[in-house]
Amino acid sequence: MPHRPIGIFDSGIGGLTVFREIAKILPHEDLIYLGDTARVPYGTKSAATVTRYAIQNVRFLLQENVKIVVVACNTASAFALDALRGQFSIPILGVIDPGVAGALRAVSKKRIKRIAVIGTEGTIASEAYSRKLREREPSTSITGAACPLFVPLVEEGWWNHDVTEQVGRVYLKEPLARGLDALILGCTHYPLLKTMLRKVAGDHVVLVDSAEETARETASLLDAHGILREAGANPVRKFFVTDSPERFQRVGKLILGREMTDVHHVEI
Amino acid sequence: MPHRPIGIFDSGIGGLTVFREIAKILPHEDLIYLGDTARVPYGTKSAATVTRYAIQNVRFLLQENVKIVVVACNTASAFALDALRGQFSIPILGVIDPGVAGALRAVSKKRIKRIAVIGTEGTIASEAYSRKLREREPSTSITGAACPLFVPLVEEGWWNHDVTEQVGRVYLKEPLARGLDALILGCTHYPLLKTMLRKVAGDHVVLVDSAEETARETASLLDAHGILREAGANPVRKFFVTDSPERFQRVGKLILGREMTDVHHVEI
Repeated sequence: MPHRPIGIFDSGIGGLTVFREIAKILPHEDLIYLGDTARVPYGTKSAATVTRYAIQNVRFLLQENVKIVVVACNTASAFALDALRGQFSIPILGVIDPGVAGALRAVSKKRIKRIAVIGTEGTIASEAYSRKLREREPSTSITGAACPLFVPLVEEGWWNHDVTEQVGRVYLKEPLARGLDALILGCTHYPLLKTMLRKVAGDHVVLVDSAEETARETASLLDAHGILREAGANPVRKFFVTDSPERFQRVGKLILGREMTDVHHVEI
Repeated sequence: MPHRPIGIFDSGIGGLTVFREIAKILPHEDLIYLGDTARVPYGTKSAATVTRYAIQNVRFLLQENVKIVVVACNTASAFALDALRGQFSIPILGVIDPGVAGALRAVSKKRIKRIAVIGTEGTIASEAYSRKLREREPSTSITGAACPLFVPLVEEGWWNHDVTEQVGRVYLKEPLARGLDALILGCTHYPLLKTMLRKVAGDHVVLVDSAEETARETASLLDAHGILREAGANPVRKFFVTDSPERFQRVGKLILGREMTDVHHVEI
């Protein structure tokens, strides 16, 4: 069978942190990324709207003949993953289950397991993380905090700005006051704030990076299905966006640390 | 002729500041507001995308039989006003011309007229304000500053938060260093930051509130067309949103200072 690409989609730019981790541990795979930049953000939108968009995104990726879809967006993973799996027959992976697994691994030795999840309004309101954490480990104590200013701060490039740290202190005040063992970065933009979050949360709190966890899970899943591409030259790195590529390329360069050349505008 | 409503649209919630001012000075008019909350924000999207959305929004308002459309969104006014006027026959008013007129009135007695415009990335990159200011008054010195964090800060309710003031000091640093007579609030969210902006800019800078200017201009235009409704009981106040109404009602209440009851979800 000729090899087929991995499809990755996000509401916009943040999913590039997942793309980056996948490219790192699966360097031979062809990767197709779709950023729904004309309709970003998903984090403040309703479940019905986000699900409709997610279905359209997967349909687009299927036209690109992908062998698996990674939903590199927490809001879409929270709201739409079940609907997507019901509708499409290829493997579809979200970022929430890998994040949950990573957090539980991090606190496995603690008697009381105190975990906080930070994310967009949509992700936190969905309680997707809390429900899954409780299902898998009833003894966990879970706090959720919506951090709606983090995404615009990241996109402004203020990853280590004083203002961002202050905003972090406001958002993390309550979870930190309750005591914390692990903090799940429940939004694909947030790995870019790791330095700041480390400083605010302190060294004793494990930061769970969903992007890294998801990349590892993607590799396992491909392996389990026997569709891993372990060698091969010139892997494809192709990007599609629903708005004009200019801003995506500019902010994306900050995230990937390199220019993206193969970027195309599509309407879906 | 039976009276017809005024149509107002914005990418989301910010246009409610324009709605509020129109309701204040035209209390007898029926008002229909459309917030395109499923596709918000427009400020980071391209001209082509914003124009497409704006045309769809006006088509929707025409089905509601509006007599005039107020584009209560700076990005849509910057990118789409000409296209809208070319396509539709009813009067269409944007927020930029009224803001420009207000600013020029404010600096009319100054020999050197130093004006700064603050807005979203899209509005500032479009140079819509600077071009119009220069056309009408070549002796002005104009600075534009994109302030992408202001909208999320307003929607977070942090109108008078320390963080917001610090962000304001960063964004206004250059315009203030160059010297400033008037500051155009070139985004419909920004009137809610007036107290902070007054503090950061100082008392000698005139703050030009496009929402107020646009409401005045709407009244003049209706008067000029002989379609002003000067009396009448129980004026309609009806709201449509393209995403679910919940968040719109919650944040909108902060802006209007009262509950919105007649809010409907539509797909356009």
